[in-house]
This record gives sequence, C-alpha cells and structure tokens, in this order.
Amino acid sequence: MNKKISLLLFSGEFDKALAALILANEAKSMGMDVTIFCAFWGLLLIRDPEKLSADHKTIYEKMFGVMTPKGADDLPLSKMNFAGIGKMMLSEMMEDADAPPLDAFLKGAVKKGVTFYACKLSTEVMGFEKEEFIDGVEIVKAKDYLQIATESDMQLFI
Amino acid sequence: MNKKISLLLFSGEFDKALAALILANEAKSMGMDVTIFCAFWGLLLIRDPEKLSADHKTIYEKMFGVMTPKGADDLPLSKMNFAGIGKMMLSEMMEDADAPPLDAFLKGAVKKGVTFYACKLSTEVMGFEKEEFIDGVEIVKAKDYLQIATESDMQLFI
Amino acid sequence: MNKKISLLLFSGEFDKALAALILANEAKSMGMDVTIFCAFWGLLLIRDPEKLSADHKTIYEKMFGVMTPKGADDLPLSKMNFAGIGKMMLSEMMEDADAPPLDAFLKGAVKKGVTFYACKLSTEVMGFEKEEFIDGVEIVKAKDYLQIATESDMQLFI
Repeated sequence: MNKKISLLLFSGEFDKALAALILANEAKSMGMDVTIFCAFWGLLLIRDPEKLSADHKTIYEKMFGVMTPKGADDLPLSKMNFAGIGKMMLSEMMEDADAPPLDAFLKGAVKKGVTFYACKLSTEVMGFEKEEFIDGVEIVKAKDYLQIATESDMQLFI
Repeated sequence: MNKKISLLLFSGEFDKALAALILANEAKSMGMDVTIFCAFWGLLLIRDPEKLSADHKTIYEKMFGVMTPKGADDLPLSKMNFAGIGKMMLSEMMEDADAPPLDAFLKGAVKKGVTFYACKLSTEVMGFEKEEFIDGVEIVKAKDYLQIATESDMQLFI
Repeated sequence: MNKKISLLLFSGEFDKALAALILANEAKSMGMDVTIFCAFWGLLLIRDPEKLSADHKTIYEKMFGVMTPKGADDLPLSKMNFAGIGKMMLSEMMEDADAPPLDAFLKGAVKKGVTFYACKLSTEVMGFEKEEFIDGVEIVKAKDYLQIATESDMQLFI
C-alpha cells in the first residue's frame, strides 16, 4: 500500500509554500499519496490570479481580496522581505541553482496528482468562492482533514 | 480505541491559536483524544486575564508579563496586523461567517475535554505561575509531551 | 526498538531553534533516535561562525551569506525582537531559570548523537558549502528526509 502524507498549509508565504510543494512533489515521485489542505493564508497559494471575483462579497471581503496576494507568484517571503528585494534575490538564486519558480512547482504538483483541498471555514471567513481557486481544488471541512491526516504516515503543519 | 492527536502550540498569534482550537474542537467532536501542549508564546493563549500576578517575579519577568498579550482575545494576528486593523477586520469577517470569537473556541475546548498542558521550562523562563493560567491547565515536562506525542496518531507543531 | 522522531527545521529563529533542540535533546535522553533536517532558514543554525567561506560564490550568494545570521548565537527572535532587546531579555530570563544558551543546546545535541542533515536543494540555492557547517552535518535530498520521516513515530515542521 502507498504511504500517505498530509500537509496542512496554513502560511501564505513564498518560502513555506515552496517547502510544502517540494515535499509534495518529491513524495509523489516516490509513489506516495499526498494531500495539501490549505487553510487561512494557505488559501492564497491556490488563488487563480486570472479568476478573481468580487460578486456577492461584503465590503470587508472585497478589501481583503484586494489587499492579499493573488496566487503563487505574488506571495511574500516569510522573512528578510525588504520590500520584495529578498524575494527577488532568492528567486534569482533559485534560477542560478536551476530550481523552477514557485508557480512551476504548483503546476507540477497538480499535474502529478497531489490533492489540493481548501478549508471550508477559511473560505467562508475570507470570502473566497470555489471559482477563484485553481482547477481541481475541492472545498472540505476540518473533519475531513482530520480523518485523512490521522490515517496518514506523516502530517506537517506548515 | 480512540484516535489521539497531539498539538504543540508554540505560537502566540490569534490566527494560529484559532487553527489549533478549531482542529482540537473538531477532533474532540469526532471522539478523538486531544492534548494541546503550550510552550513559549503558546502560553499566552492560556493566560487568564483575570488572574495576573506579579508576586515573586524578577524585573524581567514583570516587564515580560506586562508587555505580552493577556489571554485569547489579546493575541495579535501573525501577519497583516496593521496596528490591530487586520485582526479587527478578520474578527468582523468571522462574525459575518457566524464563527465564534477565539475566546469562545478556547472555552469550548476546555468544556469538551481537550487537555491543556503548559511546558514547565517555558513557564520558568517566562516567569508564569500556575495560578495565572485558566483552570485545569497542568504543568508538565518536555519528556511528558514526547511520551504522549509519540503515542499519538498525529502531531502538529503550530 | 527505539522510537524515532524527525524534525524538519525550516525556521531560522532563536526561539524555534531552541524548541527544536530542547525536544531533540530530551528525546535522545529518553533513548529515541532523533534526526533534524535543516532546510531554508534552518540552515542558519548549523552554520559554523568560524568557518565562513566566500569562495566559488555568486554575488547574490555572497550578499546572502553576509546578511544572514551566522550560527546559533546569532539567530533573531521570532517576535518582539525590538532590535535585539527581546532576545537579550529572553537570554537573561533563561539564565535566571538556569537554562543553558542556544549554542550549548546545539553542542549538547551533537554530543548526544542527534543526527543533523542539511537539505541539498536549500544549500545549493543559498550557496552554502558543506565546509561552512558544523562538524558531522551530512547533506541529503528531500527524498531521504521523506524516507526517514515516514518511518518515524512523529514528525514536526518547525
């Protein structure tokens, strides 16, 4: 039987999302089943920048939608961001080391069959609609996450 | 036999404490055994704002006690705090989505029987007394945490 | 058979590194096998401040090497750093509570036989050489981490 890993992506930062996606892609290539449950700021990773919607949103939800990063390439660094310079530097260093950009890791993970879930309560609080996420994301409850996570061989909160 | 989950709450931020409590409450309602081991900044969640003590404290401990958040409602947001505006906004959005405030999640967790532990070394370093925590919190060692955690079905560091 | 714990140290902060090392040391003293896989900012903990090298580095790697903390004693606090005051205060409070400094925890962990790994991709992106790390650190791939972590009794992302 395949090993199972379960990642809870809570953070909305470039470097942490990158860590999650690298682990997910590697695990998948080793034949493991991988689920990434995106909650709170982690939802920002799976926003599709082409599909922003402002219909049916309260004023807070609209402000929130505009003020927060829009998808993988828009996430800030967790530290040393220096108005974006740190992230630019890290991106250049990744290029020098032949590492693909974050968006490529995300597309790779989707293609490889990593399962992406969005936390129902988080989407409600933040006012995101299913249509605003990348294709294939399913909205599930915390209960579903717990069910899957407790049956996995490892769980990380990122 | 009940499934067991073990959360190590290291962070003292509103949104991360919220994530921990939502998971704890859901897991409890699914019949799982849940322990939250509060260490470092995580101790700030279980401070009882009514029971602050300054007896027997060094000058550093007093300063620290005054400068740090006092209980669930006083925790800052992990990002986009904007002098408290981000947290106010998130709280309003939670209310719109019919989600209870953090303090209600904490009281719910205690009532549902989630076990709260405080890390002994952290309480000593930060100068907190047992009497300053909410009722029912037990002070235990890192060894006790490791014993419980390694016998659990999942462990998260939040 | 010994219990196994696997820590992924992603953060480069004093307090989180301290938490990781306390858990590692306690687990080791309980007879468990402990591995700490340092990735991204976590690599800063295992830099040897005596062995900084700038050979064979790109301009970004040199800037990065100079701008980032050099070893255990140089890590900042994850919050309330106040230009270093918070960390000084915490260090004094640790001393008052008879807790050794971070560097002593690190040396203790090495001596006790905690296994330290450095993430290959992270070292390449950040431009660190094997020679810049403390003695005994082995550079391994994400695959190796996943193999070890999924066979462990607990895994934390710190």
